[in-house]
Amino acid sequence: MSADIGLIGLAVMGQNLILNMADHGFTVCAYNRTVSKVDHFLANEAKGKSIIGAHSIVDLVSKLKRPRKVMLLVKAGKPVDYIIDELLPHLEKGDIIIDGGNSHFPDTNRRYEELEKKGILFVGSGVSGGEDGARLGPSLMPGGSPAAWPEIKDIFQSISAKADGEPCCDWVGPAGAGHYVKMVHNGIEYGDMQLICEAYDIMKRVGRFSDKEIGDVFAKWNNGVLDSFLVEITRDILRFNDVDGKPLVEKIMDKAGQKGTGKWTAINALDLGMPVTLIGEAVFSRCLSALKDDRVRASKVLTGPTIPADLIKDKEQFVNDLEQALYASKIISYCQGFMLIREAAKTYGWELNFPSIALMWRGGCIIRSVFLGEITKAYRSNPALENLLFDDFFKNAVVKAQSGWRKTIALTTTYGIPTPAFSTALAFYDGYRSERLPANLLQAQRDYFGAHTFRVLPECASANLPLGEDIHTNWTGHGGDVSSSTYQA
Amino acid sequence: MSADIGLIGLAVMGQNLILNMADHGFTVCAYNRTVSKVDHFLANEAKGKSIIGAHSIVDLVSKLKRPRKVMLLVKAGKPVDYIIDELLPHLEKGDIIIDGGNSHFPDTNRRYEELEKKGILFVGSGVSGGEDGARLGPSLMPGGSPAAWPEIKDIFQSISAKADGEPCCDWVGPAGAGHYVKMVHNGIEYGDMQLICEAYDIMKRVGRFSDKEIGDVFAKWNNGVLDSFLVEITRDILRFNDVDGKPLVEKIMDKAGQKGTGKWTAINALDLGMPVTLIGEAVFSRCLSALKDDRVRASKVLTGPTIPADLIKDKEQFVNDLEQALYASKIISYCQGFMLIREAAKTYGWELNFPSIALMWRGGCIIRSVFLGEITKAYRSNPALENLLFDDFFKNAVVKAQSGWRKTIALTTTYGIPTPAFSTALAFYDGYRSERLPANLLQAQRDYFGAHTFRVLPECASANLPLGEDIHTNWTGHGGDVSSSTYQA
Repeated sequence: MSADIGLIGLAVMGQNLILNMADHGFTVCAYNRTVSKVDHFLANEAKGKSIIGAHSIVDLVSKLKRPRKVMLLVKAGKPVDYIIDELLPHLEKGDIIIDGGNSHFPDTNRRYEELEKKGILFVGSGVSGGEDGARLGPSLMPGGSPAAWPEIKDIFQSISAKADGEPCCDWVGPAGAGHYVKMVHNGIEYGDMQLICEAYDIMKRVGRFSDKEIGDVFAKWNNGVLDSFLVEITRDILRFNDVDGKPLVEKIMDKAGQKGTGKWTAINALDLGMPVTLIGEAVFSRCLSALKDDRVRASKVLTGPTIPADLIKDKEQFVNDLEQALYASKIISYCQGFMLIREAAKTYGWELNFPSIALMWRGGCIIRSVFLGEITKAYRSNPALENLLFDDFFKNAVVKAQSGWRKTIALTTTYGIPTPAFSTALAFYDGYRSERLPANLLQAQRDYFGAHTFRVLPECASANLPLGEDIHTNWTGHGGDVSSSTYQA
Repeated sequence: MSADIGLIGLAVMGQNLILNMADHGFTVCAYNRTVSKVDHFLANEAKGKSIIGAHSIVDLVSKLKRPRKVMLLVKAGKPVDYIIDELLPHLEKGDIIIDGGNSHFPDTNRRYEELEKKGILFVGSGVSGGEDGARLGPSLMPGGSPAAWPEIKDIFQSISAKADGEPCCDWVGPAGAGHYVKMVHNGIEYGDMQLICEAYDIMKRVGRFSDKEIGDVFAKWNNGVLDSFLVEITRDILRFNDVDGKPLVEKIMDKAGQKGTGKWTAINALDLGMPVTLIGEAVFSRCLSALKDDRVRASKVLTGPTIPADLIKDKEQFVNDLEQALYASKIISYCQGFMLIREAAKTYGWELNFPSIALMWRGGCIIRSVFLGEITKAYRSNPALENLLFDDFFKNAVVKAQSGWRKTIALTTTYGIPTPAFSTALAFYDGYRSERLPANLLQAQRDYFGAHTFRVLPECASANLPLGEDIHTNWTGHGGDVSSSTYQA
């Protein structure tokens, strides 16, 4: 019996993907370095399904149809390279290696180049949806060797989630594009989670809502424009009680963990010079939460405003304003995320399909939402859309939402509740719609102290301020006219 | 005639440092790859001073007293490595190479290790103050081989700026610590500049102040707690008129440039997990300013609130609130910067002298200010100070400033003026003083969808929620009890 695909790595994600593939009629060969895991899996979860096992790499390779397809679900980093090295001597030209782990896209770029040279097709695929997603329908974001796509398309699109009848899986682009898009997905996920946390915190500390009340608000929001997986699970989390009947969430230590993909996104945004501020703040918020001991100490000495118990007179209005704040901030975050992907496509020379990216995130993954259906629509109606904010739907949504958004932030600012993600989203909106920002002063400063030069506004060009030229002014009357070549600021 | 020190690289910074050294009685040998620059310099600026020239590396080395000290003022990156390679065959054990350029600290770490192995002492020194600083007294931040310090201390402390009678130069620490501290200095400089720009923008767009009025405000501020080089030059810039008598600054294109050191700081903060949000926002603000075409387009379609012409009834109160906002935000930025340096010291195993770092920035450099005198005091009275906000002076200052700070941000939020740096500073303050942040919900979400586990608050520990253990809850009632090992979020 020869298998349609082999899968290496039987942790929860790998096991669930195999079961998912088997459910869709594919024969899968399972392998794990610790071979006892293979036997255990075959004797239990995989029993009675179209799943066979392998006890070695050679065994695995011998059981695969040609061109062979081997998918790795192992820890990102060196383990991926080790397994590729082990596989290589046993593969033939045209065989396909698929890395389904959370590899950093520069690693995928490197592996893609090395393997292409050897005639092996390489795919780096983002897989999102957690363990449930992997089992029942993940979002899959494959990129790499274009020639691999026709060979794996059927399997990938069969097992993926479906949204409005369409698979949440399509070809992303060359080299590391699949893992890149998955990275940005994760960054956006950090942002969405931070925004939800801020909304919860505001209801709790400003509105003095109980967890049940907050759960009811999220339940209501989940039937509106915010309808999404993360809002849905937040509703369920707030309603989940510990054995003593009290909400479990209130007993959880408020130190956020992270595994680095949000950080990668923020670093990439800095590298590409794109103002992806909301993800940046979301990552930093996790860092601040981790400084629990400092915060406990600071809470005893750093005072703030007192929040009157009856501050919120009109709870419905307060919740509606908050919904608008969350919605508008979310629009900004996705707008920033797509700005980043667009810049990456330019910088790395990737041709990317924006409507497909939005559709891949529409279902199956952690950020799945009705909202992403609107983004898909926006890019389908204009695939060259420069910015989501130029799409009528989103432009109108954000313009309409801004009153509640501003009221919410003015309130938290006044009463001392931290809303870094809400606030940075609004600052971005107000900055993006500013024809003029105060960077003219900044350029003057840089020229003053470092002779870094500036340019003139077109409408102000003159004989002594020529358009399009780097101009240095002797601001102090002393010092040289030499512009700087080594000083950096 | 043999020289006390050799200097390679005769761009403006190198020339000015040489002249500064000569002014202080040192004999300097100047060398530049393009040798005509040496001759030109000797025949002009250097004429009549204790400055000699060299026409080759061999010539330079032969003219130096032992142990030889060679300082490089060349473009950061490969040029530094090339020159080190050229120098090496001509140096002896115990000779000293000093890199005074803006090298990235990992490069300095690497060079330090390679050269130490060869018996050559290596110093990476931050040099700040722009061309004027280099000429008249820069801030110098040397780090690297500790054995080099006694040999160069006299030259370095003689030519450096002085603040309250003390040199703004001291030994920072081993390896790349000097360049690291200079990097953070530059990041803080980005933050200070962004804060000043936001204050200017608020006065201009909310208060409808003329540039003359704004210049007068900065002049006033420069006599108070904000007394600093950057506030001083902002005053001068706002008063500097073009040939037509109109303020030059208003004609400058509002697209900020950057050379990467602010970005390095933000990336390092992300890598070390320290919430240095203000520098992050300052870097992103420069990125947003650079998207001028998008902003012009967006300004025509994305509407915002109208600012009434007579919005500000009490200008004095408005300016005072703004001063408090700027002051408090600046305190937060420095607090974040020192948190980052403290974390770097831990992570990289560097013993750093915090009072000295503050004193080095007190004078000579771009961020020099009265304010840094207070930071020096704070660290001198408690060198183990965990956070500036725990020092009475800064704690009281920020607590007192918060009313004006909150009013200012509530105003800009309501009326649509972007204040990303002011806002993120306040969000940090309110987050830092929060004993509980909403990260408990975030951890619940991560455990819900990715089985990432959470910990319990000490006060909520129980038999089923054991303290100090990684707990996974089956939130949905279905799915496995396996916690995740490969899924990353």
